[in-house]
Amino acid sequence: MTGFRYDEEIRTTPSGEHTWDGRVHAAWNIGTNPNGGYLLSLAADALRQACPGHPDPLSITVHYLRPGVPDTDCRIRTQRLRAGRTLSTARATLEQQGEARIEVLAAMGDLAGADQPVLVPPPPVLPPPEQCEPRTGEAQSLMLPILQRLDIRLAPEEAVPGKAGRPQVTGWIRFRDGREPDPMACLLFADTFPPSVMGLLGNVGWVPTVELTVQVRHRPAPGWMLGQFRTLDFSDGRIIEDGALWDSTGRLVAQARQLALVRQAERKS
Amino acid sequence: MTGFRYDEEIRTTPSGEHTWDGRVHAAWNIGTNPNGGYLLSLAADALRQACPGHPDPLSITVHYLRPGVPDTDCRIRTQRLRAGRTLSTARATLEQQGEARIEVLAAMGDLAGADQPVLVPPPPVLPPPEQCEPRTGEAQSLMLPILQRLDIRLAPEEAVPGKAGRPQVTGWIRFRDGREPDPMACLLFADTFPPSVMGLLGNVGWVPTVELTVQVRHRPAPGWMLGQFRTLDFSDGRIIEDGALWDSTGRLVAQARQLALVRQAERKS
Repeated sequence: MTGFRYDEEIRTTPSGEHTWDGRVHAAWNIGTNPNGGYLLSLAADALRQACPGHPDPLSITVHYLRPGVPDTDCRIRTQRLRAGRTLSTARATLEQQGEARIEVLAAMGDLAGADQPVLVPPPPVLPPPEQCEPRTGEAQSLMLPILQRLDIRLAPEEAVPGKAGRPQVTGWIRFRDGREPDPMACLLFADTFPPSVMGLLGNVGWVPTVELTVQVRHRPAPGWMLGQFRTLDFSDGRIIEDGALWDSTGRLVAQARQLALVRQAERKS
Repeated sequence: MTGFRYDEEIRTTPSGEHTWDGRVHAAWNIGTNPNGGYLLSLAADALRQACPGHPDPLSITVHYLRPGVPDTDCRIRTQRLRAGRTLSTARATLEQQGEARIEVLAAMGDLAGADQPVLVPPPPVLPPPEQCEPRTGEAQSLMLPILQRLDIRLAPEEAVPGKAGRPQVTGWIRFRDGREPDPMACLLFADTFPPSVMGLLGNVGWVPTVELTVQVRHRPAPGWMLGQFRTLDFSDGRIIEDGALWDSTGRLVAQARQLALVRQAERKS
């Protein structure tokens, strides 16, 4: 019981052997669908309980099978595939209304004390949050209930669809209620920026994710996190978007890559 | 029956409902362990049979649970999680001697006719294969039986461990027996170059993969393929290595990323 919304709204409780129950809250919607990083957080909450001693997702892959159903209960079935000393491998299926919604495969470990960087990508340069533009739904013609929960500030030239002329989005992110980031939050933050192709194509609406993989490298320091997402590979209506998250000390804490669908025809607005 | 080694040695045949049998051949070993891309190919062969109409891995993630056992039979259990019009999502577990060796989660589709590039990363510049250095086991103090099957030619300055001073490896790859590349071969080629950290650290021996994700974007044209692999993120004995494969026409056909362990202490040879 932390009193923070994210912790309360991703919480899963054991309801049987390898089975966990929770609820998908509509406050994390993108339009009428629950955000993908939020659904992943629910599954990861079950996975960290299913892998004692290994609370952190070192590498986690999710495939989106069907949209989640907001304000509806969910059940998560977990299977621990291997329990090693330094990491566990496990899978999870999140079901609602009797149908699988997401399938997750993860290597779980412990990032406490992770502090031996050899090569670390530096953060991009970005004006401070107060000089950036709050993310809004108008830019994408979408209702974004999730902005009740998250404060996202975008690089000014990247906040307007089509303006930057490049498929990149950079910005700050934090919880609105003061909850500090942790490895779980990285899973959410890896999927809550606007689609980076928006900078190239203009308003692209909802860009559904097929598959998302996040590698968490360190536990983030408190404060704003900085995210940058880029699409360098776009063919046949499918993009590969690469992302990275840095903490307030400028340390890279997570990398992400997703395969997603761009549904409308290409256009430059 | 193509008469090519790769096709023969990754072949799986149905042995029950959602169960496929094959054999792990020692000819694809790295040292005494079967190559990870080869084990993935066996699982993918079962997955493409389990997903009729969707023969190509659009995005495939593998977690390595235990080393494979060379020259030993394997059994692959598949589960189709969702069968859609344009893609199927499925999982597979490859077992040997009663133990799970790898766990795979994939989005399978059909890349026939994929030909609408919008953004495509260009290939790196590399001398032609005859001016590059054949990969050898000596550089890594490893026996590399897999070089019976694959012809790998590395950028001259990157072929000697520690010489380039950067964690990058670039080279050409093809099957020795003339088999042309296809999306399945991309899964193999994504995991058969020397570890890119070798360029920075010198001889690092075997770098075991925890998790590998490959996105195949197009069916490759015949001829040599060009691969480039880089490590930009190395902390706490774990690397994130990014890779890409281009075909002989210079088109990007696959991206890859893996989380792997560097077991020895950092040293510059």
